[in-house]
Amino acid sequence: MVAHHSLSLMVISDGALSSPQTVAWVDGGIELVDQTRIPFEITMVRCVNVANLVDCIKRLVVRGAPAIGVAGAYGVALAALHHNPLTDADAYLSDVANLRSARPTAVNLAKMVDRVASIASSHESALAEAHNVRLEELNASRAMGDLGADLLLDLCGRKQLRVMTICNTGGLATVERGTALAVIQTIYERGFLEEAIPLETRPLLQGGRLTTWELSRMGAPFRLVVDSAAAGLVCRGFVDVIIAGADRISRNGDTANKVGTLALALAANYAGIPFIIVAPESTVDIETPNGDAIEIEDRDGDEVSRFGDFRVCPDGTPSINPAFDVTPVGLIDALVTDKRVVRFRLGEKLADQ
Amino acid sequence: MVAHHSLSLMVISDGALSSPQTVAWVDGGIELVDQTRIPFEITMVRCVNVANLVDCIKRLVVRGAPAIGVAGAYGVALAALHHNPLTDADAYLSDVANLRSARPTAVNLAKMVDRVASIASSHESALAEAHNVRLEELNASRAMGDLGADLLLDLCGRKQLRVMTICNTGGLATVERGTALAVIQTIYERGFLEEAIPLETRPLLQGGRLTTWELSRMGAPFRLVVDSAAAGLVCRGFVDVIIAGADRISRNGDTANKVGTLALALAANYAGIPFIIVAPESTVDIETPNGDAIEIEDRDGDEVSRFGDFRVCPDGTPSINPAFDVTPVGLIDALVTDKRVVRFRLGEKLADQ
Repeated sequence: MVAHHSLSLMVISDGALSSPQTVAWVDGGIELVDQTRIPFEITMVRCVNVANLVDCIKRLVVRGAPAIGVAGAYGVALAALHHNPLTDADAYLSDVANLRSARPTAVNLAKMVDRVASIASSHESALAEAHNVRLEELNASRAMGDLGADLLLDLCGRKQLRVMTICNTGGLATVERGTALAVIQTIYERGFLEEAIPLETRPLLQGGRLTTWELSRMGAPFRLVVDSAAAGLVCRGFVDVIIAGADRISRNGDTANKVGTLALALAANYAGIPFIIVAPESTVDIETPNGDAIEIEDRDGDEVSRFGDFRVCPDGTPSINPAFDVTPVGLIDALVTDKRVVRFRLGEKLADQ
Repeated sequence: MVAHHSLSLMVISDGALSSPQTVAWVDGGIELVDQTRIPFEITMVRCVNVANLVDCIKRLVVRGAPAIGVAGAYGVALAALHHNPLTDADAYLSDVANLRSARPTAVNLAKMVDRVASIASSHESALAEAHNVRLEELNASRAMGDLGADLLLDLCGRKQLRVMTICNTGGLATVERGTALAVIQTIYERGFLEEAIPLETRPLLQGGRLTTWELSRMGAPFRLVVDSAAAGLVCRGFVDVIIAGADRISRNGDTANKVGTLALALAANYAGIPFIIVAPESTVDIETPNGDAIEIEDRDGDEVSRFGDFRVCPDGTPSINPAFDVTPVGLIDALVTDKRVVRFRLGEKLADQ
């Protein structure tokens, strides 16, 4: 385990850390709120080198495709702080390569690392570009919220909506507000949210731990469900629309997202309610032709066999633990990005095929 | 909480309790293996009156539609032991009514309680009929295993099979061998099981705790998955066939089973692999015309918000916790009972509509 420095700001009630930063550059290091501990502790973790950051990305201290993209961008600036890109290129490029491959499925990480590295001739130029990446993601969240809310009210009618979602796609997964959860927040702010229905999102419970925390903080009404309860509730008429984030969207629109998303899309299609993906343009990967070409990360079986200290099954029980699944574009009504709405169901395309 | 007497046989390794009885009548009481503690402890619980038994059924000490049917049958014998059905009818009928309504969704409980109560003129006659119920369920498991294995090898071809299943449908859910898990056991005994893929089955983890334990004891190869991983694995070609049990099958074939079953049926249909229900004839409820008429039990939200002592979300987080969902007959390829195979996909019917 790589050592990491904690500022040890362990505050359970909302105080100075009532709005912890998901990812921020502070005094020559990267500060992350530790998402493995929310909602039971609010702890900041400080990364002073790329090895720290890679460890944090792998352990999901920082997670969510846009957030790890921003973290990766700052990571290049951190690499360039320790190793001059021009005069110490081997060490610098080694850091960049390690960062780029810390997690394979979300395209944002590789894309933002490449973007910053491609222009970085110095720490200063890398940091300036990383700040741009962060600012763009921040603006993107507000744009997605508005475009998504407009779409939902258009598809479902201007009524009180019951919106189901999976995983955590809020400010913790991005910079602020989020992707799918930004849409729920905007709907709520406009007065049209009857309730959000977040899935707990096994194995790591990002929905149970993080999304409930963010919904509580915004004051929105919600009820939590186990993942497998979703299809039955959808078919019994408890849900008006399902929205989800994305980790990688291929050129044809097939979308990789948290494992469980595909089952939601199947349920929505069977019940005849809209299924919408919300993700920034940075998540679109035009280089990947379709879902079959997306690498699916397999994670450690311990995530399946344990919940914290609670054992789900005897130790050593074999398991399969894919982190993501791929929803074919044929099951997706529309994609909302920060720039546009692509209504697949109406024949619109993301790009020339 | 109703007091219950424990024999305190806490044995973690397999010893005298290597084959604990799911439900047995012993010396004027009902003994149950405590399914809330397996696989970490093997503890027998003894019910000496109907209140004990109702508590055990509600807390899922005994669970699985056929097993609670057998428990209910013995429960009538227990009621008749304390209250003569002819001379103390009010107290006897009150016990019978409490027993019958301990859980609403599985039809076996009400059906077996009614069956025994309808002929019980004394404790002795009730006990004799309850023994018949138990023996019939035992024979049914072996018949379902054979009929189901024949069907699977017919549908998939005589090859090594990868069989996905949900919840616990083994000897713990019945008397011995089980329903869907009896089919997996028979496939394994015939040499055709490549692997079983059980779902952990949140919220109460019957798959992670009980099915893995039963598969390990039979020596069968398996890998555990979280519930939401199922659809992605099915669509990636990891699974040849999905089989599940049932808690109530309506006259048209719509089937209530553990929450999560519907999502499996949707995935199987989308991927084009067979989806099979395995349940004894006692689970068929001809009085219920279709799935819309099946009452779905809503259970306590604590099951969602906690895993043992592990908190999934802050205490007091609101939730929805349906125990079952209903899979429409249009998504079910076939039903295997102890008496017949009904191939819905070929237009066969369970009963005149």
